[in-house]
Amino acid sequence: MSKQEISASVIRRLPRYYRFLGELCEKGIVRISSKELSEQMGLTASQIRQDLNCFGGFGQQGYGYNVRALYDEIGRILDTSGHHRAILIGIGNFGRAIANHVNFLQCGCELIGLFDANPFVAGADLRGMPIHHIDTLAGFCHEEHPEIAILCVPDSAAQPLADKLCALGVRAFWNFSHCDLQIDKPDILVENVHLADSLLMLTYGLHRENLSDSAT
Amino acid sequence: MSKQEISASVIRRLPRYYRFLGELCEKGIVRISSKELSEQMGLTASQIRQDLNCFGGFGQQGYGYNVRALYDEIGRILDTSGHHRAILIGIGNFGRAIANHVNFLQCGCELIGLFDANPFVAGADLRGMPIHHIDTLAGFCHEEHPEIAILCVPDSAAQPLADKLCALGVRAFWNFSHCDLQIDKPDILVENVHLADSLLMLTYGLHRENLSDSAT
Repeated sequence: MSKQEISASVIRRLPRYYRFLGELCEKGIVRISSKELSEQMGLTASQIRQDLNCFGGFGQQGYGYNVRALYDEIGRILDTSGHHRAILIGIGNFGRAIANHVNFLQCGCELIGLFDANPFVAGADLRGMPIHHIDTLAGFCHEEHPEIAILCVPDSAAQPLADKLCALGVRAFWNFSHCDLQIDKPDILVENVHLADSLLMLTYGLHRENLSDSAT
Repeated sequence: MSKQEISASVIRRLPRYYRFLGELCEKGIVRISSKELSEQMGLTASQIRQDLNCFGGFGQQGYGYNVRALYDEIGRILDTSGHHRAILIGIGNFGRAIANHVNFLQCGCELIGLFDANPFVAGADLRGMPIHHIDTLAGFCHEEHPEIAILCVPDSAAQPLADKLCALGVRAFWNFSHCDLQIDKPDILVENVHLADSLLMLTYGLHRENLSDSAT
């Protein structure tokens, strides 16, 4: 089956498979059955077989999956060996955390520039990289052509900044400000990250458990 | 339809509806059609009608949805008026960002304790709250009974810490360390947050766009 035909929902699950398979590789595990993988990942074995069948015959009945071949193939699909140039804007606690904790190379990205509007922050270093003042953004983009912008700026600043960056050639946004970016160009990619959404899932779950406890 | 019957995938989308409807309330918008809501949220109108039909008749043909009533009902389902007590462990950049930027009350939670293993960090204040040393965790849990633990600790520390917290009565984990917690008790809730997964979606998307550009 060609890569074109893989559905969006399978694609969304690929980073998770990629993570698990990477850990198995590190542990030196060569083969794994869909049953074992399903137990570790909390998916059903049939879901896993269905997902992984989408991109080739890595599973063999009775032998399980070749961990390294599957890992490499998912990496190829996700393009983790790419070198997409990324800039990060907004060097507060959140921006610092992202710069320090995300393994950009493992995600096929390279962090090439850091920016902040605060003149006391700009000028300092982070991860051995200089933090530039936001006023130098246009010049930097003209010279360095970043493809991805990571926005860790206040909500009100995010949309005008994204519009400006689109005009400067940025093609993808990883947005941590508390708003959904509205970009009307179909070829611009946006991932709005709303951390609180997953906290709400815990709140909901606790509430449901309390309801069932009180019902019994 | 009873709340018991709402599917997990609809529940996962509720925080997003809740956010959008909250913003509409703030803007003073009283009614909205599924078509308008779909355009703003990037879902299809039929998906929205199907989702929102799951929990009551808030839409009226030709009149659209009552924004406030729908917002309040989703808030009730998610239990955003709850006061689930949460503690945050690991006060590095990431922990600080979470403590400062997440609106806990809006998520039905209250942040009641901050902990760190570093004696130079413990003793300081954050958001007007003292940061406790991790050694005092057990005593704190016995007295304050937190339900949710937010883990912003190094990968290797996360699993043993979660096991300890389970034994101390914590029932839900919001996990930002780079590992999936393995907890065998079915009533313990876990949300593992893997930020890099959404960055990989951008990498994938850029790669696909480059492929189609070079094909034309």
